[in-house]
Amino acid sequence: MSELQQFTAQDEQFMRRAIALAAHGQYTTTPNPNVGCVIVKDGEIVGEGFHIRAGEGHAEVHALKAAGDKAKGATAYVTLEPCSHYGRTPPCAEGLIKAGVSKVIAAMVDNNPQVAGKGMAMLSAAGIETAYGLLGDEARALNLGFFKRMATGMPYVTCKLAASLDGKTALENGESKWITGPLAREDVQRFRAKSCAIISGADTILADDAQLSVRSHFYPELQDTIRQPLRVIFDSQNRLTPDLALFQTEGPVLLLRNSTQPLDNSPHWPHFVEQCQVESRNGKICPTAVLKLLARRGINHVWLEAGQTLAGVFHEAGLIDSYVVYLAPKIIGNAGRGLFAVPPLMALAQATTLTFSDVVQIGSDLRITALK
Amino acid sequence: MSELQQFTAQDEQFMRRAIALAAHGQYTTTPNPNVGCVIVKDGEIVGEGFHIRAGEGHAEVHALKAAGDKAKGATAYVTLEPCSHYGRTPPCAEGLIKAGVSKVIAAMVDNNPQVAGKGMAMLSAAGIETAYGLLGDEARALNLGFFKRMATGMPYVTCKLAASLDGKTALENGESKWITGPLAREDVQRFRAKSCAIISGADTILADDAQLSVRSHFYPELQDTIRQPLRVIFDSQNRLTPDLALFQTEGPVLLLRNSTQPLDNSPHWPHFVEQCQVESRNGKICPTAVLKLLARRGINHVWLEAGQTLAGVFHEAGLIDSYVVYLAPKIIGNAGRGLFAVPPLMALAQATTLTFSDVVQIGSDLRITALK
Repeated sequence: MSELQQFTAQDEQFMRRAIALAAHGQYTTTPNPNVGCVIVKDGEIVGEGFHIRAGEGHAEVHALKAAGDKAKGATAYVTLEPCSHYGRTPPCAEGLIKAGVSKVIAAMVDNNPQVAGKGMAMLSAAGIETAYGLLGDEARALNLGFFKRMATGMPYVTCKLAASLDGKTALENGESKWITGPLAREDVQRFRAKSCAIISGADTILADDAQLSVRSHFYPELQDTIRQPLRVIFDSQNRLTPDLALFQTEGPVLLLRNSTQPLDNSPHWPHFVEQCQVESRNGKICPTAVLKLLARRGINHVWLEAGQTLAGVFHEAGLIDSYVVYLAPKIIGNAGRGLFAVPPLMALAQATTLTFSDVVQIGSDLRITALK
Repeated sequence: MSELQQFTAQDEQFMRRAIALAAHGQYTTTPNPNVGCVIVKDGEIVGEGFHIRAGEGHAEVHALKAAGDKAKGATAYVTLEPCSHYGRTPPCAEGLIKAGVSKVIAAMVDNNPQVAGKGMAMLSAAGIETAYGLLGDEARALNLGFFKRMATGMPYVTCKLAASLDGKTALENGESKWITGPLAREDVQRFRAKSCAIISGADTILADDAQLSVRSHFYPELQDTIRQPLRVIFDSQNRLTPDLALFQTEGPVLLLRNSTQPLDNSPHWPHFVEQCQVESRNGKICPTAVLKLLARRGINHVWLEAGQTLAGVFHEAGLIDSYVVYLAPKIIGNAGRGLFAVPPLMALAQATTLTFSDVVQIGSDLRITALK
């Protein structure tokens, strides 16, 4: 197996196609990664596919099926090392060997400990030429959450913020509807739909009677595959009640209680609501414990959509991987509410320093992405 | 004279050249506008020029001089209607007539009441074909301050802000050096150099011992033409003293006092410092009166570089035309200092709504421009 060997322009073109295919699964594959596969014979695509849903066929299975006999002697381009273990489906490396492909190019190796190079090794052992490292960064970007969970046992956390140009999320009196415009709010729906879990706090739910659901009418192309992410709510004072909008949309909800707080097991909760005690300090739920809990449940990517207090808790603990800030072209003034309720810094050198990775105009607002 | 007639691609190309030439004067022409001129005969440029400094030749004079006899029968492209009045120099319309050009295309007419169409009329009366409206928006953008002053008797005000991603300009303890990076601070130098006046407050001068001068070493190309903008400081409590860095750089300084405050006429001030009482309310200097005063002195473009209090005063009075916000990829938290000390809004509908016009990455920071 060779890394970073000289790939041809044609190799790159086919891998780009595989990456584009993989992205089709971004709303549905959780807890599995997004993967695409293209099978090429004599310079022509003879089969392609992508992973759609956990428990169903992997990308290679779909592509091999489409290729049929033409897979013999062909080259397979996969965005991730083919799996080598029996999970809910048989190992893809085995499928590729059986189909008789002569070469497999993977964008990157899988850091899932169950795979981690074994897939490529299995292929090599069967006499198949293998290579990896083609468009690896692009392939990695498809599955930041999955790779982080595999490597660290923690999900990738994106913190969503919406503020005026002067960094205010609401007026002093709490009014916040709407600082950003309708297109920015639609854009948020798309991020929610891609996430495995949405974390918020009781404050936000009570203030806005927020549903935190994915409204499929925003993108008709997903009507069939719509999936409600797990909604995880910090409610250490048992303040939420079943009449809230949150509980009117069918879809899993996890209510977090602190470690000394009795669970409210009265029968009035809808069937999709679960409660859970989490490790706490001074009655405050530990955010790291929450993320570990979620990772154990297969949550790759968390969308944190909270007010200044909970955003501050995650920020202060260094748990946020990326910040997505919708900035409206408005000025509210110093009396408005801020983004992060954290203790004052004593020196500028203590300020968290991020890297801007992306700025897009969405309607009249900006969406700024900054990475830790 | 025809507006928006069909101009040719060649016309546009020559006008773009004239606009590029005009921009060379942006650090020096104040209080005059930036103007460029290109003289074309038989499809070839035979002369070009731009206005460099008030009191010296206008763009047309330089271009006609370069063209010499070839100006006869040529087309002149000017970014602004040629002047028709005797100012510090003779009218350019007269110069074009004398030189025998057969056609004049202006990007826009001049809204200076002393010109306002009279230049074009003078050319037409002499039998010269005239047209205007070619690349008018680009030409207007060269001289926002000049045109605003001519139209309203007020300068164009750009408010400079530098903040963390969460809208904080300093820590709670006042530390603010440096939130943004060195390239952003260099960029500020360029804006200062283009402005006619820099407004700041005694708070800022005292806190940072700020010079508010243009440091020419930032752009060697301007060593010869460096011009220190008028530094205008709100100092209604006579807090500034001659030992401050502000007074160590030669260049005009105007200290604003409120209307009841005696001027400090002690001889310890350097010769370039002037003091002035301005209309006030409750001891506070009226920002509108300041801008009118500056416009009367030929100030086209003001660069407001102040703290939250003075920025708040100008913002609340609706006097800011554009906001240039340097956002650093840092998070400081709610305890930090905000951008605009203004009274709380009672409803979001009262928030000033701007339009984002431009976002650029400068070093590791973003520069966001928003217009009123």
